[in-house]
Amino acid sequence: MKTAKFIVIEGLEGAGKSSAIKTVLETLEQLAVDTVITTREPGGTPLAEKMRALVKEEHAEETLQDMSELLLLYAARVQLVETVIKPALSQGTWVVGDRHDMSSQAYQGGGRQIDRRTMEQLRDTALAGFKPDMTLYLDIDPQVGLERARGRGELDRIEKMDLSFFERTRARYLEIAQADDSVFIIDAEQSMEQVALNIAQTLTRWVAAQPNE
Amino acid sequence: MKTAKFIVIEGLEGAGKSSAIKTVLETLEQLAVDTVITTREPGGTPLAEKMRALVKEEHAEETLQDMSELLLLYAARVQLVETVIKPALSQGTWVVGDRHDMSSQAYQGGGRQIDRRTMEQLRDTALAGFKPDMTLYLDIDPQVGLERARGRGELDRIEKMDLSFFERTRARYLEIAQADDSVFIIDAEQSMEQVALNIAQTLTRWVAAQPNE
Repeated sequence: MKTAKFIVIEGLEGAGKSSAIKTVLETLEQLAVDTVITTREPGGTPLAEKMRALVKEEHAEETLQDMSELLLLYAARVQLVETVIKPALSQGTWVVGDRHDMSSQAYQGGGRQIDRRTMEQLRDTALAGFKPDMTLYLDIDPQVGLERARGRGELDRIEKMDLSFFERTRARYLEIAQADDSVFIIDAEQSMEQVALNIAQTLTRWVAAQPNE
Repeated sequence: MKTAKFIVIEGLEGAGKSSAIKTVLETLEQLAVDTVITTREPGGTPLAEKMRALVKEEHAEETLQDMSELLLLYAARVQLVETVIKPALSQGTWVVGDRHDMSSQAYQGGGRQIDRRTMEQLRDTALAGFKPDMTLYLDIDPQVGLERARGRGELDRIEKMDLSFFERTRARYLEIAQADDSVFIIDAEQSMEQVALNIAQTLTRWVAAQPNE
């Protein structure tokens, strides 16, 4: 038996994160991992969902400052990590996360261009070294992803940013993925079947390579 | 004429911050400073007030983590500083604040014992060197202050902490006050008249010593 892992799905809008999470859950079931919870960020606890609402909603009367947004995202993340993710892992429950810290690094660091030192210091201060065991990054051209997302209906505050924002976000995603052995890049522009197959194979191989307890 | 200043009132529950703010406003009026706004923290903007509510309310279903609380406080502070305080000062409006960063240093750093390096890094990351021009710290024995506060009615989540929490908070307040020339300690256990007189004299002298534009 393997110790419980924290596996995260990352990627731009329209990259196919929801389908990827389904594939991950099915694959884990086939691997006889039967205690799994899913989380989403920002949010995932009653309090963190209230923080998510502040980040996501449109504010007629004032503009949420980039630094306030970033601090809110970390407040929500710490709340989720400490009250849900860490307790689950310590009880042997695997956790599959829809986004985690890599999203902040990519969107706020890359997209909003908050400087690297600030991004790193805040991450280290808030999370004190906690990180996913494995991340599947679904890579997609933002133009393709946004078209898919637009097809699904309304866009939120962040999804209304211009294309260059998402291009910077993707570039930072790729940069982090290339520097971190625990991040696997999945080509999300392939057919849904091919993406699912890639995810299942990558995950199965990775789990097999993990030492037993 | 003097450039606009940011003056903050700090102190434990029951130290008399509301009365002190009145005295500061009256004193500024006598000094012919006629464009003044007041702020309160956490809060002070529609968005920051929503963050305040998350910090203040009781959560039946989950415990707000100390680090999440701290990040929320900074999210609210950045929002207030960037959308209210800095714009006011740059237009020549004086700002009188009911609490600011010293509260976080004292309550979260001293009271909750979050380590000093974390407290300093977060402050520097969030505020990038912005600080009050002058702070009046109303010093009071927590037992005396809490009795006064209890006399006023319901206590919130923080006010329900035990006495040792407030003793650590006061100790940190005093430590910061002694190390920072811009902080003036007012003995808040004196009569209200005496406290008001001390504040008026301290503020008048300080304003007089500020260079003209």
